[in-house]
Amino acid sequence: MRIRIDEKIVDIKAVWLKDSERGVIRMIDQRYLPWKLRYYDSDSVEKTFYAIKNFVVRGAPTIGGTAALGAYQAILEASHRPNKFKSVFKERIEFLKKARPTAYNLFHALDTIYSYVMDLVESGEALSSIIRLTRERALEYIEKEILDKNRKIGEYGEKILEDGSKVLTHCNAGALAAVDIGTATAPIYYAHEKGKKIIVYVDETRPWLQGARLTAWELHQQGIETYVISDNAAGYLMWLGEIDVVIVGADRIAVNGDTANKIGTYKLALAAHDNGVPFYVAAPTTTIDPTLSSGREIPIEERSEDEIHFVYGELNTGELSVVRITPKGVRARNPVFDVTPSYLITGFITELGIIKPSEIRRVVSQG
Amino acid sequence: MRIRIDEKIVDIKAVWLKDSERGVIRMIDQRYLPWKLRYYDSDSVEKTFYAIKNFVVRGAPTIGGTAALGAYQAILEASHRPNKFKSVFKERIEFLKKARPTAYNLFHALDTIYSYVMDLVESGEALSSIIRLTRERALEYIEKEILDKNRKIGEYGEKILEDGSKVLTHCNAGALAAVDIGTATAPIYYAHEKGKKIIVYVDETRPWLQGARLTAWELHQQGIETYVISDNAAGYLMWLGEIDVVIVGADRIAVNGDTANKIGTYKLALAAHDNGVPFYVAAPTTTIDPTLSSGREIPIEERSEDEIHFVYGELNTGELSVVRITPKGVRARNPVFDVTPSYLITGFITELGIIKPSEIRRVVSQG
Repeated sequence: MRIRIDEKIVDIKAVWLKDSERGVIRMIDQRYLPWKLRYYDSDSVEKTFYAIKNFVVRGAPTIGGTAALGAYQAILEASHRPNKFKSVFKERIEFLKKARPTAYNLFHALDTIYSYVMDLVESGEALSSIIRLTRERALEYIEKEILDKNRKIGEYGEKILEDGSKVLTHCNAGALAAVDIGTATAPIYYAHEKGKKIIVYVDETRPWLQGARLTAWELHQQGIETYVISDNAAGYLMWLGEIDVVIVGADRIAVNGDTANKIGTYKLALAAHDNGVPFYVAAPTTTIDPTLSSGREIPIEERSEDEIHFVYGELNTGELSVVRITPKGVRARNPVFDVTPSYLITGFITELGIIKPSEIRRVVSQG
Repeated sequence: MRIRIDEKIVDIKAVWLKDSERGVIRMIDQRYLPWKLRYYDSDSVEKTFYAIKNFVVRGAPTIGGTAALGAYQAILEASHRPNKFKSVFKERIEFLKKARPTAYNLFHALDTIYSYVMDLVESGEALSSIIRLTRERALEYIEKEILDKNRKIGEYGEKILEDGSKVLTHCNAGALAAVDIGTATAPIYYAHEKGKKIIVYVDETRPWLQGARLTAWELHQQGIETYVISDNAAGYLMWLGEIDVVIVGADRIAVNGDTANKIGTYKLALAAHDNGVPFYVAAPTTTIDPTLSSGREIPIEERSEDEIHFVYGELNTGELSVVRITPKGVRARNPVFDVTPSYLITGFITELGIIKPSEIRRVVSQG
């Protein structure tokens, strides 16, 4: 994504391999956006786990990409104990899988790299060669399984947008969430590049405010007209006829088309349905979990109550701080994903084209 | 409502007439809750207008009660110019009507007192007598048109709650919003008094956070088990089967049963409908606007963008401050009410009993 740093336009990604030999991963630290652009460097599986768990990086494809690079770090760490190589590598992979429970891309990336390494080990490849090949496979995973798919999503999705289209999105399924380009934002960016004027309404997305903080930031950086709204306002704007289409991302898609995404997506889909507004999920097919027949089986993460009690932001001094919004002594509940039933979804914008919920099963059986 | 101040339990209202002769109205200043209990005193129509406009007091019935007392202040101010009494009084009433556009109770209260005064003037009542009678009428309005109706709402509504019921509410339609007792909270308080265990989930209610700040505060003060959730989470909790009933307040009800209430109520009602959860609106019949045939005609207030950009709360130093959550340069939209179509509403809990949306028309024609 192109962003402005000290008056210069710089093209960066949400995560990349900064030091190939030492396995240092650099990430835009999303905890400080939109207020400060800071990086988080990880030179270990432990630090990469921390980064995924604590929202240094977030968004299903970025989690997948970071995990792929984390798997390369796992190889490096395992290589220090050659006679326990396989068990250490496996343990590190399993550890990374525990960072977040809902995004399927995490498991897809780790399983992909794990199988690849096991094949290399089986075929008697030398350790130095395994290290090099795994690094190349992790980078290829990001390029082919994430960025190429985002580009295809942009190409297919761009066609549903017209000059003047008003798009509503929830959470951040943007460049920050998908290494670059984004999933839900890809059609918007591609339409914008083609000269279509696109107006975007962004749900602020409580509790973590990914919409207000991240999506608004990256859309604004690309020069796209952006309005932040409270999550509560989306239904009303549709009722007024001010929204042409909703596009959101996905964290896990069941075989029947039920889709887990950021908490609130379900209510948003209900509002779109009630107002006849098309509701699209933009996601690569790596988000589909072929083992789950329906959304009822998707594990939903519940996070700390503190994300409800405290809101993080910038004081007028420029310092970052939390403010408490609830009375002391009151409890909170904080599930961070929900499941949108497939009947509320108009279509999935994937790298294979725009497909209907009923077609997910076919995609899985061909995959 | 009973609240704890310095280890003592005190019974206070959201607004009351503190000095009858001088027309001083005292209000709990809701801008500082739940962090600090402060009062706001108004000795003029001007200050009362400010209080209503700027959320010192909010909530449709409390706005109505404050306006009734404001009408008494208008009489006092008009009495200083006896030869222009009628025109000054009328101008002051019209001024108060401009404080907020959506809550019907504001207009109901002001029109009620205005008609009453005009009748007194027509019948040749002396000025001193008009002043005294208007004061009594304003106090009676609060007692009869607000508090008595809240009590009835509590009695009727309590019957729909069982021991162990899990109730979800949006915004604050509590004691703070309705002078005392509340509308949506009245059934909860009455059930709690009867010894039923009630668990309440409170939508935090962005942007102004009436739920997180006010409803959570007053429920907690009454010793009721309370969980604050993001507005986004309500649909998911219903999908899990964790909510038995939704009760919300109302700002204006059209004759066909369409109901304006805090932004987000519409999406909440959609989620209740999709999950078969009963959805009740608790409101006195003074919230019904007999001149509007449908919700499309209800004027919806749009407030400052800053309510989206900034969140107000308590720093860990105990100071109150705002934090900015959006990137600079990004715009916002901030409609603060929406309209829930009548087909999503199970029933209205009113002072006349629980009535169906289709029965609103009958109530109006009898009123």
